[in-house]
Amino acid sequence: MNTPLSQDQKTPISSPTAAVILIGNELLSGRTQDINLQYMASKLSALGITLRETRIIPDDEAVVVDAVNTLRDANDYVFTTGGIGPTHDDITADCIASAFGVALPIHPVAEQLLLAYFKERDIQPNEDRMRMARIPVGGELINNPVSAAPGFKMGNVFVMAGVPRIMQAMFDSILPSLRRGPVIQSISVTCNLGEGTLAAPLRELQAQFPMLDLGSYPGKFEGAPRVMLVARGSDTEAMSQIEEALQGLVTTLGGDIEKSS
Amino acid sequence: MNTPLSQDQKTPISSPTAAVILIGNELLSGRTQDINLQYMASKLSALGITLRETRIIPDDEAVVVDAVNTLRDANDYVFTTGGIGPTHDDITADCIASAFGVALPIHPVAEQLLLAYFKERDIQPNEDRMRMARIPVGGELINNPVSAAPGFKMGNVFVMAGVPRIMQAMFDSILPSLRRGPVIQSISVTCNLGEGTLAAPLRELQAQFPMLDLGSYPGKFEGAPRVMLVARGSDTEAMSQIEEALQGLVTTLGGDIEKSS
Repeated sequence: MNTPLSQDQKTPISSPTAAVILIGNELLSGRTQDINLQYMASKLSALGITLRETRIIPDDEAVVVDAVNTLRDANDYVFTTGGIGPTHDDITADCIASAFGVALPIHPVAEQLLLAYFKERDIQPNEDRMRMARIPVGGELINNPVSAAPGFKMGNVFVMAGVPRIMQAMFDSILPSLRRGPVIQSISVTCNLGEGTLAAPLRELQAQFPMLDLGSYPGKFEGAPRVMLVARGSDTEAMSQIEEALQGLVTTLGGDIEKSS
Repeated sequence: MNTPLSQDQKTPISSPTAAVILIGNELLSGRTQDINLQYMASKLSALGITLRETRIIPDDEAVVVDAVNTLRDANDYVFTTGGIGPTHDDITADCIASAFGVALPIHPVAEQLLLAYFKERDIQPNEDRMRMARIPVGGELINNPVSAAPGFKMGNVFVMAGVPRIMQAMFDSILPSLRRGPVIQSISVTCNLGEGTLAAPLRELQAQFPMLDLGSYPGKFEGAPRVMLVARGSDTEAMSQIEEALQGLVTTLGGDIEKSS
């Protein structure tokens, strides 16, 4: 832990930025509770990639194209989920091709992957199933170890399935290829004080540690109302000091710290 | 069910549109799994209000102001959650005031509500707690039956707490004031066929029922892989026909229908 920092670690490195686009009418009708965002957000955070925005949008070509073009211009990476299956409402590949102004032909490798998968399972490779082999020109395949139909990378946009198990496998396979930022550490201190009591000293502490992101989150912990103070940041020295500072803040105010963090 | 339609029901009524903005760094770091969106989405859908887009953004004034102004211009209603507590990272009221170009003074009724709540609980009404009484000029209060600190309505923007229990109470109190659209009904048929088998006839059915929104959702049902076909729409006559049509589609293809929907 006390290893001297290398020059590389001392030099502030810019954090890559990312945006997520969750595509699907079912997310906006209330039918489906998304769980893909948190999966991606946690892993991006661990790699020091800043997730700046998420949009949840319907299966509507104009809306998808606009969101993709806006967010790919503004961020290092864009991740989309949903809409790459075989049915009529699966229009994400069409949208990405349109956003990049390229054609959407059958990709020979994707075609072989699907044909092999279907043959093994005695499934008819009909026209709809083979739609899943259409990849925008210039796209690179993302492996789908669950059901063969690949995702793809087009420029800085990664297009993945919406089914969580498939999305997770695709996302995990992408991660090693991403540029990383300074690792963002996180610590938390949970206490029995109210946010209104904590606010002033927390504001002062934030001013003392401008390089960190301090937040307070009221909630129930083991049934009782508690506030969790969270510090996040990539500054190793500041992060080594902040837990003690937060604990000191709580005890100075006469509060108790829950065994957690 | 066979009551003749009134003229009002026959005339297509435009559906009001809505956007949701979930505000909070914790949603983009993966620390917190949002559950507010689905709550709002289900209830808006039941009122015939079309939720067109959701954005999840950080506690960053420029980003919040931009999202609020973009989405309030484009939609009948905007709902925000998060960032109205007493701590330094609670900046949503400031952002809304800035978005509307108005001041953010202490609101006398909000002040009284908070003072009464604090007095009853022997809580010190310090400066940070009283920040929660600041309401943009022209804003109307939204009652908070849990912890007094109100939300507010500013123009067509409804500003609510992020804590689910408080958000839900605030949202429920808003609902009666919203303009409703034609009620969107929803039915589903779950079967043991693959999406690739269902795709072509489903596409044909969608063409026959352009006024409905047909979707197919693969997933696990009681442990087995199944596909749920969902039809949504406000056209009562079409909705009365679509369940049988979907069931017919499945049985014609030799599939079995799960007892559900």
